[in-house]
Amino acid sequence: MLDLAIIGGGPAGLTAGLYATRGGLENVVMYEKGMPGGAITQSSEVENYPGIKEVVSGMDLMASWPEQCMRFGLKHEMAEVVRVSRPEGLCFKVELSDGSVETAKSVIVCTGGTPRKAGFKGEEEFFGRGVSTCATCDGFFYRDKEVAVIGGGDTALEEALYLANICSKVYVVHRRDEFRAAPSTVKRARENGKIEFVTNVLVEEVYGDAMGVQGIRLKKKDSGEVIDLPVPGVFVFVGYDVNNRVLKQEDGSFLCDVNEYGEVVVDLQMRTSEQGLFAAGDIRIMAPKQVVCAAGDGANAAIGAIAYVEHLHRENLC
Amino acid sequence: MLDLAIIGGGPAGLTAGLYATRGGLENVVMYEKGMPGGAITQSSEVENYPGIKEVVSGMDLMASWPEQCMRFGLKHEMAEVVRVSRPEGLCFKVELSDGSVETAKSVIVCTGGTPRKAGFKGEEEFFGRGVSTCATCDGFFYRDKEVAVIGGGDTALEEALYLANICSKVYVVHRRDEFRAAPSTVKRARENGKIEFVTNVLVEEVYGDAMGVQGIRLKKKDSGEVIDLPVPGVFVFVGYDVNNRVLKQEDGSFLCDVNEYGEVVVDLQMRTSEQGLFAAGDIRIMAPKQVVCAAGDGANAAIGAIAYVEHLHRENLC
Repeated sequence: MLDLAIIGGGPAGLTAGLYATRGGLENVVMYEKGMPGGAITQSSEVENYPGIKEVVSGMDLMASWPEQCMRFGLKHEMAEVVRVSRPEGLCFKVELSDGSVETAKSVIVCTGGTPRKAGFKGEEEFFGRGVSTCATCDGFFYRDKEVAVIGGGDTALEEALYLANICSKVYVVHRRDEFRAAPSTVKRARENGKIEFVTNVLVEEVYGDAMGVQGIRLKKKDSGEVIDLPVPGVFVFVGYDVNNRVLKQEDGSFLCDVNEYGEVVVDLQMRTSEQGLFAAGDIRIMAPKQVVCAAGDGANAAIGAIAYVEHLHRENLC
Repeated sequence: MLDLAIIGGGPAGLTAGLYATRGGLENVVMYEKGMPGGAITQSSEVENYPGIKEVVSGMDLMASWPEQCMRFGLKHEMAEVVRVSRPEGLCFKVELSDGSVETAKSVIVCTGGTPRKAGFKGEEEFFGRGVSTCATCDGFFYRDKEVAVIGGGDTALEEALYLANICSKVYVVHRRDEFRAAPSTVKRARENGKIEFVTNVLVEEVYGDAMGVQGIRLKKKDSGEVIDLPVPGVFVFVGYDVNNRVLKQEDGSFLCDVNEYGEVVVDLQMRTSEQGLFAAGDIRIMAPKQVVCAAGDGANAAIGAIAYVEHLHRENLC
């Protein structure tokens, strides 16, 4: 029986493990089938994690975390969790892909989210080297330069507005000439002097060299005309998958409340609607999707889990 | 006219400044009359800020933050803010103690809080070297050792329960034999085998040497009997002052909603009830009072301020 199962090994999961074990919880396991570190390990440059003033790769940023966070007894199990459930009135069940089941008094789910790929040539090759899915993270690297934003939803246009504060020009590249984004957001983007719309186009490829992206080639859907934008940065916002699969029950419902996007509803203490179940990092509603925010969430959730488990012990509920 | 005024220069304020300037806001000033760094600079040992795996002093932990956070244009003004107000429909007014006034489109308030002193001999001398006001921060340094908790409120007993997970014994030292804490919390503490109540006593002094605390001397209020507890750690929870003075208006009301303890009410995006005014770190409701959480709040609030200011520009409100 675990005091706490942590699902996911990014900044939120690692920090939750550090705080939970340092706070006295025993048998705390972090389930992460790959190496710990999270999505940030795919970034080539990070300069906004406070306390690390050098510009470092995401991999380097996270290199010291596992040792620090596991020093107090956190165990890392390289296993895939397929489902977290809770039989009525009992402890949580953590089902692994090999068919085994562990029980836990409390659970913190921090499995993050995955930006969708647009599917053009060069997208994977240049990811983290000119192709980005995070304006807050990477926009500054293109200060006073031109960038392209791919997408037509709210996120794409809001991120374009964010980038317009920093970059000299922002091309919004969209395959249609209508936008899913809220009309007021479209209006603000249209009225922004730094934003130029390039619509009814398909992205052919992002091209570059060993140093990174040098441009993006588009094709007009009607005329077939090729448009070349020689931009060093391409931001892709064509959707986002919240990694909430482990919370999905056999009947298709979720173990706790999620919003219309599948993000887990939490309060300021990272408590979900299910007692003893916490969420932290990019999986939760309103996540700023920043390493320092995810880590803060993890600490916050762990402090809640410690109090919850202490309470359980007194009540002999589990 | 500032895009953003940040009131307070701890982890929340510094991180807010980093994110705001890196996100393109201009004229961003952090008001902190002393050196930046915040309350954590009074701690002698920190080992739970993720990414800094060495055990460092709070001063060393924060040493690199100002340079990193000010690299993108954040200005530090060593001035004391006496009040933030907002004349109807206009921008914020930031009043300084020298009588000057600055205007700002948005404000992030992160002035933290101050644990109250119990007032015994040795309390200041050994603060950060055995006397602590944070169980989450410092409890682990007394693993399998005995500690004393001073206080009789909810925080004191909840922190005692937290410490009981880690320490071999927790003395709860209280000057009365009745507790302000919720009866259910008192009951849980009484039933905890590691917690021993020492009531109706006054704290005479905390004593020790250059290495830190060696014990605490108490005096029975009725008999005058002296009790010596040879503990290396003393946790003081006798109240907490939220540093919300800058939000207090001339008529005694607050600029935004605060709760019964004076903590600023925020949502998950650190927005207060006043549009364009954000709160971050220990001043807000439900603050976990951890450096990483305060820093996460600061990033979160800055992202909100950037969006708010961008929106203002379009609407020409300010």
